[in-house]
Amino acid sequence: MLIVQKYGGTSVGGLDRIENVANRVAKARDEGHDLVIVVSAMSGETNKLIEYAEHFSKSPAKKEMDMLLSSGERITAALLAIALQAKGYDAQAMTGRQAGIVTDDTHTYARIESIDPKAMQNAIKEGKIIVVAGFQGINKNGSVTTLGRGGSDLSAVALAAALKADQCEIYSDVDGIYTTDPRIEPHAKKLDTISYDEMLELSSLGAKVLQNRSVELAKKLNVKLYAKSSFSDDKGTLITKENENMEAVMVSGVVLDKNQARVTLRGVVDRPGIAAEIFSALADANINVDMIIQNVGTDGLTNLGFTVPQSELENAKKLVETFNHEIQGVDFDEHVCKVSVVGVGMKSHSGVAATAFTVLADSNINIQMISTSEIKISMIIDEKYGELAIRALHEAYGLDK
Amino acid sequence: MLIVQKYGGTSVGGLDRIENVANRVAKARDEGHDLVIVVSAMSGETNKLIEYAEHFSKSPAKKEMDMLLSSGERITAALLAIALQAKGYDAQAMTGRQAGIVTDDTHTYARIESIDPKAMQNAIKEGKIIVVAGFQGINKNGSVTTLGRGGSDLSAVALAAALKADQCEIYSDVDGIYTTDPRIEPHAKKLDTISYDEMLELSSLGAKVLQNRSVELAKKLNVKLYAKSSFSDDKGTLITKENENMEAVMVSGVVLDKNQARVTLRGVVDRPGIAAEIFSALADANINVDMIIQNVGTDGLTNLGFTVPQSELENAKKLVETFNHEIQGVDFDEHVCKVSVVGVGMKSHSGVAATAFTVLADSNINIQMISTSEIKISMIIDEKYGELAIRALHEAYGLDK
Repeated sequence: MLIVQKYGGTSVGGLDRIENVANRVAKARDEGHDLVIVVSAMSGETNKLIEYAEHFSKSPAKKEMDMLLSSGERITAALLAIALQAKGYDAQAMTGRQAGIVTDDTHTYARIESIDPKAMQNAIKEGKIIVVAGFQGINKNGSVTTLGRGGSDLSAVALAAALKADQCEIYSDVDGIYTTDPRIEPHAKKLDTISYDEMLELSSLGAKVLQNRSVELAKKLNVKLYAKSSFSDDKGTLITKENENMEAVMVSGVVLDKNQARVTLRGVVDRPGIAAEIFSALADANINVDMIIQNVGTDGLTNLGFTVPQSELENAKKLVETFNHEIQGVDFDEHVCKVSVVGVGMKSHSGVAATAFTVLADSNINIQMISTSEIKISMIIDEKYGELAIRALHEAYGLDK
Repeated sequence: MLIVQKYGGTSVGGLDRIENVANRVAKARDEGHDLVIVVSAMSGETNKLIEYAEHFSKSPAKKEMDMLLSSGERITAALLAIALQAKGYDAQAMTGRQAGIVTDDTHTYARIESIDPKAMQNAIKEGKIIVVAGFQGINKNGSVTTLGRGGSDLSAVALAAALKADQCEIYSDVDGIYTTDPRIEPHAKKLDTISYDEMLELSSLGAKVLQNRSVELAKKLNVKLYAKSSFSDDKGTLITKENENMEAVMVSGVVLDKNQARVTLRGVVDRPGIAAEIFSALADANINVDMIIQNVGTDGLTNLGFTVPQSELENAKKLVETFNHEIQGVDFDEHVCKVSVVGVGMKSHSGVAATAFTVLADSNINIQMISTSEIKISMIIDEKYGELAIRALHEAYGLDK
C-alpha cells in the first residue's frame, strides 16, 4: 500500500518522540508499504515564533509570518529524515515547495491550488521514504505560504489525494474519535468508524482531533482517513463515506462546547434584511457567530438569538447597541454552554430529538435555545449543567454499550 | 548609495538585539541609502539544530542538514523584516532562493555559482529594504544548500557584487580589525584600513572577524568591505585593495594561534615524493596541516616539520608511525604556539624578519620553527611565551602608536 502518515506537534514534540515516530515509520516500511510522512512543527515551536514576531508588531506582515512559521515544519522534517537514515532507511526530506504544493496568495491561510506529485513519485520509485514539511507551500510567485492552524492535516490529505494513496493516517496523542469527551464521561467509547459529515460536526464542536478543512477536503476527494495515536498501536477511527452499516447507529457522539455566550435581541423589527444587516456587521467586526436562531414573529416583531465565543461577547455587545433603534431589548448570558448530539442515523430515525429533550427535562435542565441540522441537534443550556447533560445524553443513546 | 549590510549571530542573538539592528538599518535608510540586509541565525540556534541532528546520527545526511540548518537564518530574516515594518519601513524578507542565489551541489559547503539579482532589483526599485536569509541558496535541482560556517559573510559579499553595491558592511560584536588581540595586548589599536591579502593572513590565523572565503571573494570581485560593530558607531575597518598609502605601513598586525601542535620527523630519507606521500596520507585522514618546514638535507637525510591543531595530534602520531621505516625518529610537542607578523609593507622593507627574531631573542624566547610568505612571518615557540611574544612584537613594530 501507499500510505500517507501525518504526525502532529505533540507526536514530534521532542527528540525522543521523533525517535518514536521514526520507529513507527520503520515498522510500516518493514511491512512493505510505500510511505509519505507529513510532519508538524515540534509542539510549542510555532507559538514561540509567533511570540517572537509579536514582540515587534501586533499585526506582522503575513508574508513574513509565513516565512517565519514555515521553518518549524522544515526542522522536524529534516530531523525525522535523519532519524530514519540513522536506522538504515532511505529517507528524503522535502519542503512544501519540493513536494510540489502550490497555493493561492492568501498568506497565513492559503488554499492549496495544485500539487505536482512528480518529485515525490520519482523518490517513491527509488524506494525512498519521503518526509514532507507540513503546513506549507509556495504561491505562483515563489513566496512561501502557510495553510493556517492545523494545516499539516490539510497537507497530508491533499498529498494523499494527489498521490492516489490507499489511506491517510493522522497521528496525534488521541487514539481516535470518541462518543464524547472521556474527561467528562469515563464510559466514552472509541468509534471504529464515523462518516465525514459526522466528523465535521464533531470537529467544529471542539473534538479537535482533526482539522475541519482537512476533513472537508478528504470528503471532497474521497480520501480514506484514519485518526490514530502515535503513542499506541490502537487501530484508531476510520473516517469515511457513509455506508449502510453506519445507518444502524442513530447517534455517534455527544459533545460539549463551553466557550459560548448567548445574545438575544428581543422585539426586533421584522423587516426584510434586518438579520443580514446585523450579521454582516458582526462579520465585519470579525466576531465569529456560531448558532443563530430566529423564530416566526408576532405583531411585526421577532426575537433573534445567537451565540459567540465568550471572548468576543464584549465586542458583540458594543456592536448590537448600534441597532438599538430597531430592537426593544437585549439579553446577554456568558454562563451558557452548548451540548450537541451528532449522528447520521438521526436522518432516518425519528425520536432522536425527543430523547434529548426528555433526558434534559428529566435532569431539570432548562433548554434556552435549540438548533438542528440533518445530523446534529444543538442545545444551549446553563453552563453549570454541561457535564451532567453530556453524561445523561451519552447514557440515553447507549453510547457506552 | 546601495549598501549591503550583514549582521552576524551575536548581533541578532535575541529580540532586543534584532530591535537594535532594525534601528541601525532604519537610520541608514533615513540617510537615504538603498539597503540589502543579510542576516545570520540567532547565536546558538545553529548549534542547537546540529545537536538535534547528532542526537540521531553522528554523520547525518548533508542534504537534510542543509534543510535543517537553513531554517535559522530564515527565522531571523522574517523577524527583522517584521521589526522594520513595525517602525514604518517597507521591508521584505527573502530566502536565499528568493534572492536568486544558485549554488553547486556540495551540500553543507556549497559554492555560489550564480546570482540572479532581478527580484532584489525590482524590490529595491519599489523602495523596499530587502532582508535576505544568509548562508543559503538552492542548487539546480531546487534543493536547499548551505555555504558552510560563516557563510552569511559570503552571501553578503556575493550579493554586493551581483547588485554592484557601493559597499558591503559586515557587522559583528567587534568594531574592526586590530593590530593584535586586545585581550593579550591592551595597547592594540584598531586599523582604519587593511588590504585583502593582509586580512586573509590575519583571518586564517584566527582573527575570526571575517570569514576567509568571503574576503577571498571580496578580493576577487573587488567588493569594498567594512568590518564594523553592531553595538557601536565606530566607522570600523575598511578592507580593500592595496594602495600606495598602505605601503608606508610595514606591519599591520601580529597574531597568536595557541591551537598548534608540532611534529618533527628526523632523519627522513631524502628521496623524491616522500613529502608528498606523508602529506597525502595526512590529508586522506582529514588532518589539517598548517605550517610545513623542510630544510635542505645532509647525507641523504632531511628533517621535516609540520604543525597540526592540538586535537588532531593523536591521529597524526598514529599516521606518522606507518612511515617508521623511512625515518630515524619523531618528536611531538603539543605545548607550542604560533606567533605571526603580517603586513604588505614587508615585501618592500627588509629587516622586518630580523626585528622579529631580535625581539624574541631579547626576551629569551627560543624559535623552534620559522615560515615566511611575502606578507607574513610565522614562528613556532613554546606555548607559555605566546602572550609575551605578542606584546614584545606589537611594541617593536610600533603598532601601539
